[in-house]
Amino acid sequence: MKTSHLLPLSFLLLYLLPLEAQDGPAPRARDLGIPFAGAPGPHNAITDVPGVRVGYATLIEGEGRLDVGKGPVRTGVTVVLPAPGFSNYRSFPAAVFSLNGMGEMTAGLYLQDYPLLYGPVGITNTNSVGVVRDAIGKWLFDKYSTGGLFDFSFGLPVAAETWDGVLNDINGLHVRPGHVFAALDNAQSGRIAEGNVGGGTGMVCYEFKGGTGTSSRRMQIDTSEYTLGVLVQANFGRRPQLAVAGVPVGEELPELMPELKAPMRSDGSIIAIVATDAPLLPWQLQLVAKRVSLGIARTGSYSSMGSGDIFLAFSTAEKIEWNSNMDELDALLNPIFLATVEATEEAIVNAMVAAQTMTGINGNTIHAIPHGRLREIMREYNRLKE
Amino acid sequence: MKTSHLLPLSFLLLYLLPLEAQDGPAPRARDLGIPFAGAPGPHNAITDVPGVRVGYATLIEGEGRLDVGKGPVRTGVTVVLPAPGFSNYRSFPAAVFSLNGMGEMTAGLYLQDYPLLYGPVGITNTNSVGVVRDAIGKWLFDKYSTGGLFDFSFGLPVAAETWDGVLNDINGLHVRPGHVFAALDNAQSGRIAEGNVGGGTGMVCYEFKGGTGTSSRRMQIDTSEYTLGVLVQANFGRRPQLAVAGVPVGEELPELMPELKAPMRSDGSIIAIVATDAPLLPWQLQLVAKRVSLGIARTGSYSSMGSGDIFLAFSTAEKIEWNSNMDELDALLNPIFLATVEATEEAIVNAMVAAQTMTGINGNTIHAIPHGRLREIMREYNRLKE
Amino acid sequence: MKTSHLLPLSFLLLYLLPLEAQDGPAPRARDLGIPFAGAPGPHNAITDVPGVRVGYATLIEGEGRLDVGKGPVRTGVTVVLPAPGFSNYRSFPAAVFSLNGMGEMTAGLYLQDYPLLYGPVGITNTNSVGVVRDAIGKWLFDKYSTGGLFDFSFGLPVAAETWDGVLNDINGLHVRPGHVFAALDNAQSGRIAEGNVGGGTGMVCYEFKGGTGTSSRRMQIDTSEYTLGVLVQANFGRRPQLAVAGVPVGEELPELMPELKAPMRSDGSIIAIVATDAPLLPWQLQLVAKRVSLGIARTGSYSSMGSGDIFLAFSTAEKIEWNSNMDELDALLNPIFLATVEATEEAIVNAMVAAQTMTGINGNTIHAIPHGRLREIMREYNRLKE
Amino acid sequence: MKTSHLLPLSFLLLYLLPLEAQDGPAPRARDLGIPFAGAPGPHNAITDVPGVRVGYATLIEGEGRLDVGKGPVRTGVTVVLPAPGFSNYRSFPAAVFSLNGMGEMTAGLYLQDYPLLYGPVGITNTNSVGVVRDAIGKWLFDKYSTGGLFDFSFGLPVAAETWDGVLNDINGLHVRPGHVFAALDNAQSGRIAEGNVGGGTGMVCYEFKGGTGTSSRRMQIDTSEYTLGVLVQANFGRRPQLAVAGVPVGEELPELMPELKAPMRSDGSIIAIVATDAPLLPWQLQLVAKRVSLGIARTGSYSSMGSGDIFLAFSTAEKIEWNSNMDELDALLNPIFLATVEATEEAIVNAMVAAQTMTGINGNTIHAIPHGRLREIMREYNRLKE
Repeated sequence: MKTSHLLPLSFLLLYLLPLEAQDGPAPRARDLGIPFAGAPGPHNAITDVPGVRVGYATLIEGEGRLDVGKGPVRTGVTVVLPAPGFSNYRSFPAAVFSLNGMGEMTAGLYLQDYPLLYGPVGITNTNSVGVVRDAIGKWLFDKYSTGGLFDFSFGLPVAAETWDGVLNDINGLHVRPGHVFAALDNAQSGRIAEGNVGGGTGMVCYEFKGGTGTSSRRMQIDTSEYTLGVLVQANFGRRPQLAVAGVPVGEELPELMPELKAPMRSDGSIIAIVATDAPLLPWQLQLVAKRVSLGIARTGSYSSMGSGDIFLAFSTAEKIEWNSNMDELDALLNPIFLATVEATEEAIVNAMVAAQTMTGINGNTIHAIPHGRLREIMREYNRLKE
Repeated sequence: MKTSHLLPLSFLLLYLLPLEAQDGPAPRARDLGIPFAGAPGPHNAITDVPGVRVGYATLIEGEGRLDVGKGPVRTGVTVVLPAPGFSNYRSFPAAVFSLNGMGEMTAGLYLQDYPLLYGPVGITNTNSVGVVRDAIGKWLFDKYSTGGLFDFSFGLPVAAETWDGVLNDINGLHVRPGHVFAALDNAQSGRIAEGNVGGGTGMVCYEFKGGTGTSSRRMQIDTSEYTLGVLVQANFGRRPQLAVAGVPVGEELPELMPELKAPMRSDGSIIAIVATDAPLLPWQLQLVAKRVSLGIARTGSYSSMGSGDIFLAFSTAEKIEWNSNMDELDALLNPIFLATVEATEEAIVNAMVAAQTMTGINGNTIHAIPHGRLREIMREYNRLKE
Repeated sequence: MKTSHLLPLSFLLLYLLPLEAQDGPAPRARDLGIPFAGAPGPHNAITDVPGVRVGYATLIEGEGRLDVGKGPVRTGVTVVLPAPGFSNYRSFPAAVFSLNGMGEMTAGLYLQDYPLLYGPVGITNTNSVGVVRDAIGKWLFDKYSTGGLFDFSFGLPVAAETWDGVLNDINGLHVRPGHVFAALDNAQSGRIAEGNVGGGTGMVCYEFKGGTGTSSRRMQIDTSEYTLGVLVQANFGRRPQLAVAGVPVGEELPELMPELKAPMRSDGSIIAIVATDAPLLPWQLQLVAKRVSLGIARTGSYSSMGSGDIFLAFSTAEKIEWNSNMDELDALLNPIFLATVEATEEAIVNAMVAAQTMTGINGNTIHAIPHGRLREIMREYNRLKE
Repeated sequence: MKTSHLLPLSFLLLYLLPLEAQDGPAPRARDLGIPFAGAPGPHNAITDVPGVRVGYATLIEGEGRLDVGKGPVRTGVTVVLPAPGFSNYRSFPAAVFSLNGMGEMTAGLYLQDYPLLYGPVGITNTNSVGVVRDAIGKWLFDKYSTGGLFDFSFGLPVAAETWDGVLNDINGLHVRPGHVFAALDNAQSGRIAEGNVGGGTGMVCYEFKGGTGTSSRRMQIDTSEYTLGVLVQANFGRRPQLAVAGVPVGEELPELMPELKAPMRSDGSIIAIVATDAPLLPWQLQLVAKRVSLGIARTGSYSSMGSGDIFLAFSTAEKIEWNSNMDELDALLNPIFLATVEATEEAIVNAMVAAQTMTGINGNTIHAIPHGRLREIMREYNRLKE
């Protein structure tokens, strides 16, 4: 770990949001004519939920042969902040569901018993979960400590991961506390970057380049309007199963497979964060978190053994009361469930559409899904929205 | 309940299995050209798993206005027997997963702690779970009691349900112990009936007629060949979400909606039973049971609040050893997981394809999915296998 | 089951509640000088929680040799009603915890996902769970049906069990719907019977006579006063482990062991129902249900394999809001947790103290714990409160 | 965190085992005459399970006023190694149970789905979980990497915690990777230190000094002899509840309360690790992990809200086969369950008996339980074994 101590902080390449706005916006899945049901929010992003912010630290450095501790580096940190500020006196109802627990989300056992999210959520590579977890706690202590003699502001931070060792020197442990602090301090609302950013930098999805993706849905329920947003770090799936809006894209696109020096033994993972301003209690958020599975399934995954598929859902509503009127529950939950499935599916496709071809350790190359060819296939299956 | 006491046993109309065999085989989803991946077993049924048998009791009687306790009756019992006989000294590794627990599967808490399935599984309507549960226990006691002073052969029987009150006098409690015994005693291997049979008699699926369906997959893993089969009682979903092999059939088929005297407040449920002869321990079967969710999702469901989506998986392997070689686990589990997703999807579509239009209480009518129109739509989306 | 059809309804012997009140009140554990911490409510019973009622049907008939279907009968049904009436538009927050799931509680999977208790809870013997479950549903339908075309008033009833085959012709299935209706219709508040009543009739606890027991605690939290009550059906444990208020009573009392014709293969179970008027959400009730384990442990149990130790907790509070102030949560939950542990321990000892020696099938005899000797032992260990 | 970078490695005060052996062995709970049931192994320690080793790094430095980042430091790391070496091709069946999840155990979600423990377990303070988790992964990579292109030897490490901020500068993050490597490299079998060592250094238990404790049990089951051992990091409980072998020691010992500059808002936690060489599958280990709760309850705890009570159980058996003979299961599991309860209770009392009075940050002082007075109280309650 000495080597990484020497890395200058300039190593932290922050893709400050909104990156694409500077270059002209990159196309998203809807822009390509992929048909998705439902009405997204203004940015079609988790940040459409008021108060929710997202921050990234993206680490890209070096090329060529893997030299553990030196690189090449293709990794990063993503943080999702449920609110602009934090306090020991306000937590957000939350729930975790693990479709396939071959992965890590710290505070998972905590949230099962105490469904109280009171701080940021970090997502990074597998081997950097600890440093991200502790850094979130330290950041909370530094900013929100109440100064009492017994101070719990550090808390039990949430940090999740997917494995980026196909492209990244993952055993080099390049993520440092400073990267986490930067991601936290630079978190923004509004349109957010997708693809090769933050924790999503080195991801592989259905053997195309994966990464970070997001989507949202707005719903009118009775007289209230609610927003639900999903952010995914998508790093899962084998090519033959890939489906886009029901079309067997993977079967039609067997080319552009990963160029690797060795076969991958195990495939990836997906972390999903669901935020909503609908007034949901933890037991209802547990049901929401389960539905992420159904959105993932729409893209074809069978959730392979090596995949750490773990989902966190939280509500930012200020006031939530116990209500057991079954008709009202039905009217509330069903649109929320449908929105979760739809936004998860779209967030994954957004991640793939935004991601760009990347070469990492040992020259391993993962190709981006080709937009033109994708549109052609959608058209062949009468599913292109033009 | 007095009325139902008077019902003659002749009330038990159908439990003969090779119904279609007598009439010439009814087409199944594959016969219609729906493209499914994977290689099914000889009967494309859960009974392809050696030793597994299925029995039905189908209760169809009366027409017209609902008179609680008198009918009309559109219900039944399905039983899945993991083996030809039972003993206190052999149980089958098993696991339960609840995607949405708005339903019942007795012994659910038992199986969470003691993943030992030692008897038949019953599936019926919601209000008859108790009678089916107790009747299975009595049947086990009558046939397998060891005659000791303290006899546990009754056990903790497994009985699950879906709600058939759209077509059936569900509050009339028409299922009687004799129906359960008949289903158990007549259980068969080989090709089994689908559609409006057994517990699936009064089902509604994506607002078409639903029912019982099944499918299987065969896999070569290393030098061994394994079979995995799924049986579903499919009673879930709303029309707009219906997808068949990824094609948005529900959007294309808005006609033939249920003809009901009152709007349905809540939609259905799906029970799935997964059997395999692969040597899986309970923790592995838990992962298998979770994958049923992904197969359901392929048909479009978002698992609505009213849906009791509960799945049971078991292994019939004689000898199972702890093995923690990650490469071997990967090689074993991934094909099993994929088979589960594929067979679940196909079993649901099989249930719908086999089901026939039915009129029940108050003249409520649920239409079968029209085979010709379904083929047309598949062709429009370039997904008909001809 | 034909035999039991012939049983007259007069077979239903006991369901009158203030049994002891007629004979002069039987002593309870506190009356014997057993020291328990905490302040109980006026009846030291689950019925101290406003609105909660308890009903029993006790079946005792016949003597001598076991003749399956004829008797002897030593069983019954206990019902706990969370409120005086029920509606589809009000459910009670609830949670289930299974310390050892070698038992049954129907609706267990339902309550894990939808923590909404909307009707009575039944407790009976293992082989009668189905009939009790269906009868509760029918009673709800008969009394609370809204008469709509699609009626869900039957619901997903909760029925739990412990195994009484040491004394009772459990395979004779003597519990009938009429017994359940009688218990429901005669449920009362105020002081309730303990020992050999209702579902607790044929119980064995630490190889003394067990049965039904109850206890309660009152707490002042901030400016509010709350009550928490526990009812147990206690049928568990081996003699050597029995502890009463920490005293090794089982070691000191090796005599008065069960007189059985065959050794018991497996020991019992305990069902516990926790009610409170404190405003607890399901996630908090889940924590409460877990604490029942700790109360049981105080009596010495290690929760043997054969023991179905399943607990249900619910809140009757009218209005419950999300509150995430950690200091306020701490102030609320800790007294509730302590009350749960204390009341569970006391309810178990109450069950044993109230139970009377019983002879059942084949002359099997289970002795009551001798009150005088128990007091002597407590005194020897300096724990008698005089 | 800069300050701690400057700390020399000599800061790592390793209490090399067996410390007490050098000074004459410190008394353990049994030596004081506390009566415990069951037969312990030769060292009455988790290390009685063949192959299991324990290592500590104990950090004690500085006195006086808390200066975050500088000290005083009263913390450490404990590691439990299930085997002498590790490989990707051998994992140990394992299970986690959370009695009260106000705590952290990384890999908790992983072990729920994939009950495969393949490396060391670390226990430290709350705010150092991340660094310990990542350091265990790095140590595994450094020692056991197979050198393939895609290397998973880092794995998903297990690190748990309890909160030592009463005595320790917990926000100073003094635990460094080097401490973890030292604990791992120095892990030993045989008699191990207890009390103020490793992660247990700064613990408080029932408002006496807590710490690390261990105990074991040997069992003959059929013709096989098995050992089960428990190690706890005990940091929980309030004085009034403390019970020792059933005696209300807390009520009798209200003196020697913590001397603190501020009242403690929340009380502690307990992490327990259970190891056995009995051939247990994960579902059986899940039941074992639950029983730790019952052992804790024997010491009086009601598991308060602030307590992170999380338990891990694993088996070191080489060969484990599926066996569903209920009689054999009963014969195997019941002694294992009882051993778990007994060894947990004894390990906690051992931790308290071994711990010595400690003064930490701001002069906060936690007193050791006075051995003489403890013996007197046991004698008053006729429970001293002389």
